[in-house]
Amino acid sequence: MNQALNKTIQKPLILVTNDDGVTSKGILSLVNVAKEFGTVIVIAPDKPQSGMGHAITISHPLRLSPVDLFESVETYSCSGTPVDCVKLGVYEVLHQKPDLILSGINHGENTSTNVLYSGTMSAAVEGAMENIPSIGFSLKDFNPEADFSASQIVARKIIKKVLAEGLPDHTCLNVNIPKVRPEELKGIKWCKQAEAFWDDRFDKRFDQFGRPYYWLTGDFECTTDDIESDLYAMKNGFASIVPTQFDLTNYKALALLKKWKL
Amino acid sequence: MNQALNKTIQKPLILVTNDDGVTSKGILSLVNVAKEFGTVIVIAPDKPQSGMGHAITISHPLRLSPVDLFESVETYSCSGTPVDCVKLGVYEVLHQKPDLILSGINHGENTSTNVLYSGTMSAAVEGAMENIPSIGFSLKDFNPEADFSASQIVARKIIKKVLAEGLPDHTCLNVNIPKVRPEELKGIKWCKQAEAFWDDRFDKRFDQFGRPYYWLTGDFECTTDDIESDLYAMKNGFASIVPTQFDLTNYKALALLKKWKL
Repeated sequence: MNQALNKTIQKPLILVTNDDGVTSKGILSLVNVAKEFGTVIVIAPDKPQSGMGHAITISHPLRLSPVDLFESVETYSCSGTPVDCVKLGVYEVLHQKPDLILSGINHGENTSTNVLYSGTMSAAVEGAMENIPSIGFSLKDFNPEADFSASQIVARKIIKKVLAEGLPDHTCLNVNIPKVRPEELKGIKWCKQAEAFWDDRFDKRFDQFGRPYYWLTGDFECTTDDIESDLYAMKNGFASIVPTQFDLTNYKALALLKKWKL
Repeated sequence: MNQALNKTIQKPLILVTNDDGVTSKGILSLVNVAKEFGTVIVIAPDKPQSGMGHAITISHPLRLSPVDLFESVETYSCSGTPVDCVKLGVYEVLHQKPDLILSGINHGENTSTNVLYSGTMSAAVEGAMENIPSIGFSLKDFNPEADFSASQIVARKIIKKVLAEGLPDHTCLNVNIPKVRPEELKGIKWCKQAEAFWDDRFDKRFDQFGRPYYWLTGDFECTTDDIESDLYAMKNGFASIVPTQFDLTNYKALALLKKWKL
């Protein structure tokens, strides 16, 4: 067969991962949508990896085990983080860049600065570092049995568009979906990352030996009323999409600080 | 004593952390510089936490133990990540924001996209999220017995300036120091984050039961010749400083992508 023709009829290769673990309902919901668009391979953590941010595993060895979880989908369970899963996918399992990386659907939203802590989004950012079109999806519902039907509709629309159009260089998408029924969803809105922060608290307890331990808890404080922000969109019943990059340079501050004598 | 006068003669409160662990030579080198400027408190990981990025500990409890490591410095060893150390410091130990957060001195550089993986820098970014002036220091030398004397000179200059001038809102500094003797250092240069990436590889081995495991390894590929970048400064014998922020929105892409019909 003509090589070019062969290429055009080949289905896209889609790598799916998440941070809630390979057995979560969220990743099943995403795999079922991804299968409509191409050949799917799943490499996802063998345990919850929420809050792992952009962590990689370098102090102990990584394990990767084939598992039979999704119909007709090659699937691996990985002992590492979501970012490890992407690296293992590209460099060890596929030995090539997939056409698309999908991460999620996360049980819990990753709007605003939560993108920094999120394993789901860090997997997508790692994909962007490899210049592979990558999308993270998160539903504002921590329930393990959450209803992902609105999220699936949003994912379907965005995946279709990204496969057709591609994404700007070194940019992934942070998609968040409110906890609504499909018919209640107001639409999908392009946004910027809201400036909002956790007001942290530690729940101090004592173990059976009387020694203290701590659970990180707190409230997410939304003080912004920026109508362009992802938090505003979500609060008003829209799914939000933030084009997400990884250059942390503060260029405005750089121009100012260059005047310092050091 | 007059409250205002008392305030003016109070020494700055400086929280020090790192990702190599509380017993590393790098943190000792930083504590010794920090003590020249104020009252120091150390909260640092009880084990190496390199590559932990912005991870937080939410799936198991955190431990915090007082340890006696540095002369006249209140010090805690923490079971969690560098970001956990900052959160515990602000919300559980100090119950107030310190005047300055210092992270490092890391054994190994954190230029370019390494900022994403770096526990050292994520602690500084967490400080920036709290709007506390924060600086991460990293030396391009992985040796546990590395010579931190050039790094200490750089740290002294920058800490003095930051305590005097403050930093722009929600911005921390990523400082990298080349492996040189103090007299060889060419200077300190304001930079942007270089666009460079890891070419990852996995070293596949087999355990005593014949089961495979993987070590993440690879080469850091610097393809950029951008003379404004941190990698260029370091390659030419300068320490680099990048003003670092955490808004990951790609605003240029946002303007483009808003035209998509979804």
